[in-house]
Amino acid sequence: MFGILKLGGSILCNKDIPYSINWDNLNRISMEIKQSIEEYSKKNEKLNLIIIHGGGSFGHPVAKKYINKNEFKNMNIGFWDIQKSMRKFNNIVIDALHEYDIPAVSIQPSSFVAFKGEDIYFDTYVIEGMLKRGLIPVIHGDITLSNEMDYKIFSGDHALPYLSKKLKPDLSLHASDVDGVLDFDNRVIKHITSENINEVLKYLSPSNKEDVTGGMYLKVMEAYKLGVKTIIFNGNKKGNIYKGLMGKEIGTKIN
Amino acid sequence: MFGILKLGGSILCNKDIPYSINWDNLNRISMEIKQSIEEYSKKNEKLNLIIIHGGGSFGHPVAKKYINKNEFKNMNIGFWDIQKSMRKFNNIVIDALHEYDIPAVSIQPSSFVAFKGEDIYFDTYVIEGMLKRGLIPVIHGDITLSNEMDYKIFSGDHALPYLSKKLKPDLSLHASDVDGVLDFDNRVIKHITSENINEVLKYLSPSNKEDVTGGMYLKVMEAYKLGVKTIIFNGNKKGNIYKGLMGKEIGTKIN
Repeated sequence: MFGILKLGGSILCNKDIPYSINWDNLNRISMEIKQSIEEYSKKNEKLNLIIIHGGGSFGHPVAKKYINKNEFKNMNIGFWDIQKSMRKFNNIVIDALHEYDIPAVSIQPSSFVAFKGEDIYFDTYVIEGMLKRGLIPVIHGDITLSNEMDYKIFSGDHALPYLSKKLKPDLSLHASDVDGVLDFDNRVIKHITSENINEVLKYLSPSNKEDVTGGMYLKVMEAYKLGVKTIIFNGNKKGNIYKGLMGKEIGTKIN
Repeated sequence: MFGILKLGGSILCNKDIPYSINWDNLNRISMEIKQSIEEYSKKNEKLNLIIIHGGGSFGHPVAKKYINKNEFKNMNIGFWDIQKSMRKFNNIVIDALHEYDIPAVSIQPSSFVAFKGEDIYFDTYVIEGMLKRGLIPVIHGDITLSNEMDYKIFSGDHALPYLSKKLKPDLSLHASDVDGVLDFDNRVIKHITSENINEVLKYLSPSNKEDVTGGMYLKVMEAYKLGVKTIIFNGNKKGNIYKGLMGKEIGTKIN
């Protein structure tokens, strides 16, 4: 099974406290990933995995120091300041994974990823080579170059659809702090297919709800268009990462 | 002026002590780089710079734990172990540069560089974009993928000729712990050109001297073939980094 798992910054950090780690979640999630690897191994299958984590409370507080009216300022200092903070976070995540013997390795997007307009410039030759060798690349939100002279935050929400589209995993997993895609009555919509996609998008329309959905509209649209089986689920709940990686029914499935 | 400066691990670390920094050199070198930037600025010129540092005492002691009979072993742990150690070293170097207001940023080769046979796979789009923005990319020795399933150390001595060939700097600078290319009487050969290159290569022939020259033969050969003005000099000596960056006569000049 080849999966790409995005761990939202909100489940690895305490959003309200800069540079805080949610250790309970980080350790539990590492353990559940290890469990999945072992479970596949028992079935003589391999779990090929890419992990993506957002900036969490290491990204936003640092980045906002250098953003003024939607533009990056003082990047002679800022570029490294943001890189350094994200390296710290990435070190902590990878070290936690290694505590559970997960062969995680670091991918630092600011070294080689850039934006060209809306397009992402992101070569995956090394990431694919790592997967072949049984390593698990851990990619993080980061500061990147954009167009001729600008900068732009490359987030986990850029990385997941980009890599899913390019590498065509069997499963693309969004673990965040919501239970899935919710309907008008706040019930999880279990399955989104061609049959109900238009109805669902009506619930989520940003113009209707002033984007309190946290960009859910875009996530669902992108996932649907991808043609890759996608699950959106709550990574704060015990057992969900394991279930997700094992392909069990949780949250909202899109395909 | 566009320069690429390689700082040998031997001048930034104490070779005999794992994970040791030569703080005197690191601070002095940072100061001399800053001096050069200011000197160019006074002349209304810009110093575009790429800095490369080797693994020093952060690279070799960690890498050798995972090398057995010239092959990498146990890389499920080793890849991250080497990455992590080099990230630590790179953090220290970049932080020191920022102490002198040098806009240094990190490039982590293991994220996107690989070997294909003897060829290096190394996209420089982001590095070039950093230079345009006045940032100074700091690239380090690192563990990388090689061919189908192997690994290989990507060293500063790979990075310097590769980037010099690709990006055609005005000046390519090797700062190490030797005074330059030496003749039979241990005197520095000041200038290597088409007139004396064959004679010089005779002095350096590895078969003659059992490569006590520390790969000097290869360095000279590569530098000569590049067609980029190259200086090989002693970075341990006060003032030499500054002089080198200002294009003054030190060590051995090859062109």
